Amino acid sequence: MAKKMEKITSRDTDFSQWYTDVVKNSGLIDYGPVKGTMIFKPYGYAIWENIQKILDAEFKKLNVSNVYFPLLIPASLFNREKEHVEGFAPELATVTKVGDKILGEELYIRPTSEVLIVDHFAKEVKSYRDLPLIYNQWTSVMRWEKTTRPFLRSSEFLWQEGHTIHESEQEARAMTLNILEVYKKFASEVLMLPVISGRKTEREKFAGAKETYTIESLMYDGQSLQAGTSHYFGDNFSKAFNIKFQNMNQQEEYGYTTSWGVSTRLIGAIIMTHSDDQGLVLPAKIAPIQVQIININESTEVLEASQQLQAKLADDFRVAIDKSDKSFGFKIADAEIKGIPIRIEIGPRDLEKQQVTVSRRDIRSKTQVNISEVEKYVHEQIQAYDQNIYQQALTNRQQRTFSANTVAEYMALLDKKQGLVLVPFCGRITCEQEVKEKTQTNSRCIPDDVVQEKAKCFNCQQESKLKVYFARAY
Amino acid sequence: MAKKMEKITSRDTDFSQWYTDVVKNSGLIDYGPVKGTMIFKPYGYAIWENIQKILDAEFKKLNVSNVYFPLLIPASLFNREKEHVEGFAPELATVTKVGDKILGEELYIRPTSEVLIVDHFAKEVKSYRDLPLIYNQWTSVMRWEKTTRPFLRSSEFLWQEGHTIHESEQEARAMTLNILEVYKKFASEVLMLPVISGRKTEREKFAGAKETYTIESLMYDGQSLQAGTSHYFGDNFSKAFNIKFQNMNQQEEYGYTTSWGVSTRLIGAIIMTHSDDQGLVLPAKIAPIQVQIININESTEVLEASQQLQAKLADDFRVAIDKSDKSFGFKIADAEIKGIPIRIEIGPRDLEKQQVTVSRRDIRSKTQVNISEVEKYVHEQIQAYDQNIYQQALTNRQQRTFSANTVAEYMALLDKKQGLVLVPFCGRITCEQEVKEKTQTNSRCIPDDVVQEKAKCFNCQQESKLKVYFARAY
Repeated sequence: MAKKMEKITSRDTDFSQWYTDVVKNSGLIDYGPVKGTMIFKPYGYAIWENIQKILDAEFKKLNVSNVYFPLLIPASLFNREKEHVEGFAPELATVTKVGDKILGEELYIRPTSEVLIVDHFAKEVKSYRDLPLIYNQWTSVMRWEKTTRPFLRSSEFLWQEGHTIHESEQEARAMTLNILEVYKKFASEVLMLPVISGRKTEREKFAGAKETYTIESLMYDGQSLQAGTSHYFGDNFSKAFNIKFQNMNQQEEYGYTTSWGVSTRLIGAIIMTHSDDQGLVLPAKIAPIQVQIININESTEVLEASQQLQAKLADDFRVAIDKSDKSFGFKIADAEIKGIPIRIEIGPRDLEKQQVTVSRRDIRSKTQVNISEVEKYVHEQIQAYDQNIYQQALTNRQQRTFSANTVAEYMALLDKKQGLVLVPFCGRITCEQEVKEKTQTNSRCIPDDVVQEKAKCFNCQQESKLKVYFARAY
Repeated sequence: MAKKMEKITSRDTDFSQWYTDVVKNSGLIDYGPVKGTMIFKPYGYAIWENIQKILDAEFKKLNVSNVYFPLLIPASLFNREKEHVEGFAPELATVTKVGDKILGEELYIRPTSEVLIVDHFAKEVKSYRDLPLIYNQWTSVMRWEKTTRPFLRSSEFLWQEGHTIHESEQEARAMTLNILEVYKKFASEVLMLPVISGRKTEREKFAGAKETYTIESLMYDGQSLQAGTSHYFGDNFSKAFNIKFQNMNQQEEYGYTTSWGVSTRLIGAIIMTHSDDQGLVLPAKIAPIQVQIININESTEVLEASQQLQAKLADDFRVAIDKSDKSFGFKIADAEIKGIPIRIEIGPRDLEKQQVTVSRRDIRSKTQVNISEVEKYVHEQIQAYDQNIYQQALTNRQQRTFSANTVAEYMALLDKKQGLVLVPFCGRITCEQEVKEKTQTNSRCIPDDVVQEKAKCFNCQQESKLKVYFARAY
């Protein structure tokens, strides 16, 4: 029964090795032949497809239109927004030739599509009548990495990138925050991640942005993970790309832009938050299989009962019967390692009593349930399952949320137990640079639900303007 | 009213210019900054999204799993299947550096993912228990082009590529043909393209394939367009990549592979088959907007009536109200140029009689319909619309399908009227090469529904083994 599980290191012993073991053994991915790349196998990609489907429907409620912009960006175009270039230059995969022919201009594989889309906006936008443009694309992007950590760091990753342009600062700011809200709701209600949200500090905001908002998620080991960001650019890009429009009063004005994205990092966050030593524990709404039926033997009555049960549950759930010729024990372990929320075992003795055995992956329960009540029971349990994994993550976060008033206190806390530490902070880039050098950590966000009291900066002792979470992060 | 339409050249005057005008003025695409690339604007991308959604559901009925493989292929891996390399070498966009650092090995942007996926199969497949693997991915690929023709020729295009491996020749052959059938059904029942299907000749089959099957679609101007292909590789790739598995009798055997794909060329085919001098005519099932409501004025009663009508139709159709501040005439022209199947005009005088005016884009009809009957009427008319555009395309194909017994006859026919010409053909590569040089045309397919009679090859006069369609093609 423990055939596959043997391979998984305990997460309390070596969290990093545990992560690698779970990702590999659950069949989510494989490594690609180019260093830093990964292959999304069917089970891994199906999670991303479910994320796409749910999130895309939310975007469409905000009048987002999907588009597709080319993969390659001419070097000259990319270099037009200075901060933006500097942020990405060392990571740019560069096409210099086609066949044997050297190209006249180097082309970058998109690390993000800001400049392409903003350049297009400059052509499209003439009048306030053309605004807003609210675009999104689901693509892959490339930012070269020396090491691979599946879903967390890879040279190529999948994501969505939204890019919008508006006629007023107010409208653009509202867009930025509406998307942050979509991300927060999606993280907490679909992925069952109790994220915190807020603004990034000056040092941590996106290259070229006026403000960056973030949702941050605390992993099981107490390190933080940035799970989604939404940027307000003001007219920075509009000025660099000369996007002017005629407003209602027939005056020329620069447009206001935003961009926002989440990536396959979300899958990393799910794994590092909910999963355990038996393998994955997947939130029910994005689990490729929500209910796995396992037959104890191959008798006609068992097979028929499992098919009937599948048919009955298939309207409301993604249900599969394990039809492999593996042993019963192997099938159980496989359903566990794959993080399938509900498992139903059907055997002849149970059937005599008109029963099946239902197990929940999170609490590894086993309950005899009358066949006539399975549907209702699965509905209840799958909800309870999601609530429980959310609550566990929330409890972990609460137990790992601290506050400190000095860098010494901050470091002493992190030495004892990783987590989010709320500190008074002056907000200056140079000061945060100092903290980074001293502690190898940085700020995660300025939370939107914490009152900013007068105090002294935990590092420089100048007047503190902000309460900020600092933490170790992925 | 003709504001936008002025820009469209008549398709009978200059088909090529007409195509460019329609594509550009209907807001489907724009050109990207790198030569040979295109931007899918919201209206163009929405068509592709609808194609994806319907086709993906059909694939899933055949147990196809979606995956994602990396963008970049190491040169050494790509060079492993010789015919395959030769087919693509001059078109390969090549990454040689990252930032300032020259890479140790050149990396190709995928022109197709055969070698990546087959290389992965070699790692995954150990036993017949691991088979079949039935993978598909929706991605972009790159094959460098000197000229751009939107949807038809571009350096980067969007497509799906299916790749499968099976334990027997029989199963792999069945897969190849099942997919051909999916493509044929999708083309004829969703895109309303009366395609013909068949096998490619030796010269025209895919690099590395044993057999290539195709659906061919005849455009309005009589040129043919390859709209989808399905390849049977036998064990060619398995031998090149050493994919062996242990069969049921515990013997080692090579796997049998297939691949198959359709691309955004399908959108080109739709346009060149159905559209007219007023702009697009989109098949209803993939039209981003199926019913456009246009208000004759902005009075409260008109606005309310249009909202009520939208709500009523929205369960079954994609319905939009044109809320722009453009003139009524402009809105009509815009709905026409965008190829929206059904247009409903609502005005105060009609409302007094409890009526609205319903127009069909294909026949440009105008019918007064009682409001209580609009739903039923739209259902009927949208079906009739699809049937009519299919029938028009079929009639065009039938009027452009000829047969010839010699190259001279063949050329005389094409000089008079472009179309598909059925000829007796020996099937030899060198002979087809000769025909290509003489006529600048090549074979389209060996149709599966034509009896092959004994005759002499239309070019070399050797014994003919096949009846083959030749044509000018996109």
